[in-house]
Amino acid sequence: MKIIILAIGKTDEKFISEGIDVYLRRIKPFCPIEIEVISEPKNHNKLSVEEQMLKEALLLEQRITLQDVVIVLDEKGTTYSSVEFAKQFERWLQQQKRRLVFIIGGSFGIHRQLKEKYSTISLSAMTFNHQMVRLFLLEQIYRAFTIIKGHPYHK
Amino acid sequence: MKIIILAIGKTDEKFISEGIDVYLRRIKPFCPIEIEVISEPKNHNKLSVEEQMLKEALLLEQRITLQDVVIVLDEKGTTYSSVEFAKQFERWLQQQKRRLVFIIGGSFGIHRQLKEKYSTISLSAMTFNHQMVRLFLLEQIYRAFTIIKGHPYHK
Repeated sequence: MKIIILAIGKTDEKFISEGIDVYLRRIKPFCPIEIEVISEPKNHNKLSVEEQMLKEALLLEQRITLQDVVIVLDEKGTTYSSVEFAKQFERWLQQQKRRLVFIIGGSFGIHRQLKEKYSTISLSAMTFNHQMVRLFLLEQIYRAFTIIKGHPYHK
Repeated sequence: MKIIILAIGKTDEKFISEGIDVYLRRIKPFCPIEIEVISEPKNHNKLSVEEQMLKEALLLEQRITLQDVVIVLDEKGTTYSSVEFAKQFERWLQQQKRRLVFIIGGSFGIHRQLKEKYSTISLSAMTFNHQMVRLFLLEQIYRAFTIIKGHPYHK
């Protein structure tokens, strides 16, 4: 199974891109992983928040197939400790699908249509910069593999 | 009032140091802020986890005065949404003290003595790399100022 992080808007902070690279490198020995960044919709600044989120949801849906396990990141989603997340993550990986796809919305978050359709997880009750969330998710995925494999990293 | 982030162990990932600098620069127009890093205790690898955490707690206590509002970061601490955190943060800043001190423990977390003595907050139910937590906290502090000031960043 391959892990895909599907995110809206290119990473524009250098330290975040560097951190993403560090964690992708650490995760790859455990599992193939890739970040797919979808550009924000054209003229997105002229759209209402609702229109923008709906357009983003359509762009995200186009990238999803029936062969994917899809998890949407949302502040109000299910919360887990890292150990609980690792167990859940292992169950997702054991499903007979081709890809495990995590969706991270744009700066306004994710349209309710997607939240209703797929499982949601929350990394925190707090709102974080949607680009920084990529880093947090990668750290938790790496931590999950170290927990599953009994590697000393997670302590 | 000055904000101090008191943390154990120097930041050894370059992308984290860079991210910390980015957020310190953003926060400084709102309030003076500084990170004070305390080195891990000598020969810490030879100590038990309990001994190491206790030594770290003593080193942390030495840096705290009666003129400080002290908040300990702990996974099991009080959780807030970003807006609730901003309100609480404003109340801390309004206290007639000299410094608002956030304590971030070392790789094993924080000794229970400190958790019992001071208020605790949780950024997430998940365990994160204790160095990356510095970045999360700074982003929330910056977000809190933008919420308090009605700045568009937090959306």
